[in-house]
Amino acid sequence: MRTVEWNYETDKFQMIDQRLLPGSFEIAVYEDYRLVAQAITDMVVRGAPAIGAAAGFGLALAARQSNAQDVPALRADLEAAANHLKQARPTAVNLAWALDRILRATAQIQGNAHQLKGAVLAEAQKIADEDVQINLSIARHGAELIEDGDTIIHHCNTGALATVDWGTALGVIRMAHNQGKRIHVLVDETRPRLQGARLTAWELSQYHIPYDIITDNAAGYFLSTGQVQKVFFGSDRTAANGDVANKIGTYMLALAAHDNQVPRYAVVPTSTIDLALSSGPEIPIEERDSSEVLGLTLLGHQVAPQDASARNPAFDVTPHRLVTGIVTENGVAYPPYKESLKRMVAG
Amino acid sequence: MRTVEWNYETDKFQMIDQRLLPGSFEIAVYEDYRLVAQAITDMVVRGAPAIGAAAGFGLALAARQSNAQDVPALRADLEAAANHLKQARPTAVNLAWALDRILRATAQIQGNAHQLKGAVLAEAQKIADEDVQINLSIARHGAELIEDGDTIIHHCNTGALATVDWGTALGVIRMAHNQGKRIHVLVDETRPRLQGARLTAWELSQYHIPYDIITDNAAGYFLSTGQVQKVFFGSDRTAANGDVANKIGTYMLALAAHDNQVPRYAVVPTSTIDLALSSGPEIPIEERDSSEVLGLTLLGHQVAPQDASARNPAFDVTPHRLVTGIVTENGVAYPPYKESLKRMVAG
Repeated sequence: MRTVEWNYETDKFQMIDQRLLPGSFEIAVYEDYRLVAQAITDMVVRGAPAIGAAAGFGLALAARQSNAQDVPALRADLEAAANHLKQARPTAVNLAWALDRILRATAQIQGNAHQLKGAVLAEAQKIADEDVQINLSIARHGAELIEDGDTIIHHCNTGALATVDWGTALGVIRMAHNQGKRIHVLVDETRPRLQGARLTAWELSQYHIPYDIITDNAAGYFLSTGQVQKVFFGSDRTAANGDVANKIGTYMLALAAHDNQVPRYAVVPTSTIDLALSSGPEIPIEERDSSEVLGLTLLGHQVAPQDASARNPAFDVTPHRLVTGIVTENGVAYPPYKESLKRMVAG
Repeated sequence: MRTVEWNYETDKFQMIDQRLLPGSFEIAVYEDYRLVAQAITDMVVRGAPAIGAAAGFGLALAARQSNAQDVPALRADLEAAANHLKQARPTAVNLAWALDRILRATAQIQGNAHQLKGAVLAEAQKIADEDVQINLSIARHGAELIEDGDTIIHHCNTGALATVDWGTALGVIRMAHNQGKRIHVLVDETRPRLQGARLTAWELSQYHIPYDIITDNAAGYFLSTGQVQKVFFGSDRTAANGDVANKIGTYMLALAAHDNQVPRYAVVPTSTIDLALSSGPEIPIEERDSSEVLGLTLLGHQVAPQDASARNPAFDVTPHRLVTGIVTENGVAYPPYKESLKRMVAG
């Protein structure tokens, strides 16, 4: 199954519950768009492209739930639901992008409320289907950057689980592997939610790609001792100047790669490029609950003191000067990004 | 009690078992130097100065254990025991430093085996006592670098638990706090053994110094958003050129501080300065068991897949170009370190 999908037999929306992986594989089923918003906040689903697709299907649920008898009333309900869904997480731009796209695409629908409801689901499905195709295009462009024998550091999870299917940065690695290139992946465990150790390791096992998990703070050791040829990561939002907001730790990783002349690539569908934002510091950075940092046990022991407090920013901004290239479905953008990203978005 | 100490009532060596903190406070008691070596390997005790003192007392145990009837036979037993203890961990230079110092100090002892045994314990005790005084001198020099209102990132644990008592980098922060300066500490949790989240947080709670735990990969966010004024860390071995080998992650932290013009200080007793090594890449870096990375549960779930593998370097090298100053008991060394460190070691 896909990470997020509409089930046309039950007419319900379903997602893999990523909080339980790799320990158990469970499907969460939704009939209420408000619970989809909560699931995005709680990280049942995460990864910018997957969040965008989930929000789209959430809006399709909102359409089903609406009791509006005419098109204007239904549109008002959809706009309220879209605003609610947009609040679920602040950093990834795909959330707003997908919702705005559906509202825009269905703005001219003539006919009755039933037809509008169908059009909303159709557009959400189109976003999901396109995501898979976009990822395959990204993967083909990105795989050209990988050479046989490369050891690659990968941050967070950007695989099938972060998208509708296939993946972005991990999709590039997967494509290069399928082309017969021998690759070894050093998997940043990616504290605090450990998407690398949990999800990326699980995906790489399934694809039979050799890997080792490393702590995030060990990346510098492997980079500075000449053991790494490339660094790949995703982006939850990319500004017009090429600044990249991605999972916390990406900035320090890119900096260490830069310090050792190891190329580092952001891998992004153009839907995550926000040309309305001129630079990274304008991107809102989500700070999540401190329990994600403090709720850890090691070898059976509670880690932090009972009265400890913590700060937990979920993303950071990697300045464009540290990014060698940005891989999109329309090709690889290189500096100066102000021009090259515009070309990528235009297609 | 001290972190490591000889108990003159029982004539045994005892240490706080740091693996169990902060959940429980237990004292481990030793009568066999081989078990002290194993305890150093297993990180019952850690931190370069504490390891040095523990090894010294371990050698005193070896003297007690020896059945040698004359001084030459006892010396041979001591040298064998010192060689065994030196193998316990490779990176911290204090281990070899303390053992060589005791062998050297007792080389000229006249008299019988009993007197030599007493001299070994006396020198081990002297190393431990001096460590506390050295830390206080370090703290006074270092505290001058801290201003009222500073937010400081601290890596790993360099407090009373990493030394015989008081601490090095954390001792500097503690001294500045005692001087009435208002300080907030961002505590790197320091994967994989989480000495920051476990030990530094526990110590800061006891000293009533305000802090927040952060994941190691979040340091760059706080540095790049202007929320940090200083970075302090220890060193397990410092080369003649000022390159610093310290707990894994120090390099990426120093790099991120450097990228944001935030001063970063290594805080080291001169016993950790190895003038025989010209630069950092010559320092042996310990790689520890992968279970330290993989043996993690988050919110009750096993993190990594069952068949996952991991790499686990315990230290990295921070090049001297990233180190603003090196605080010692004899003052603060600044670049060029080749000259200034020589002066510090000479006293």
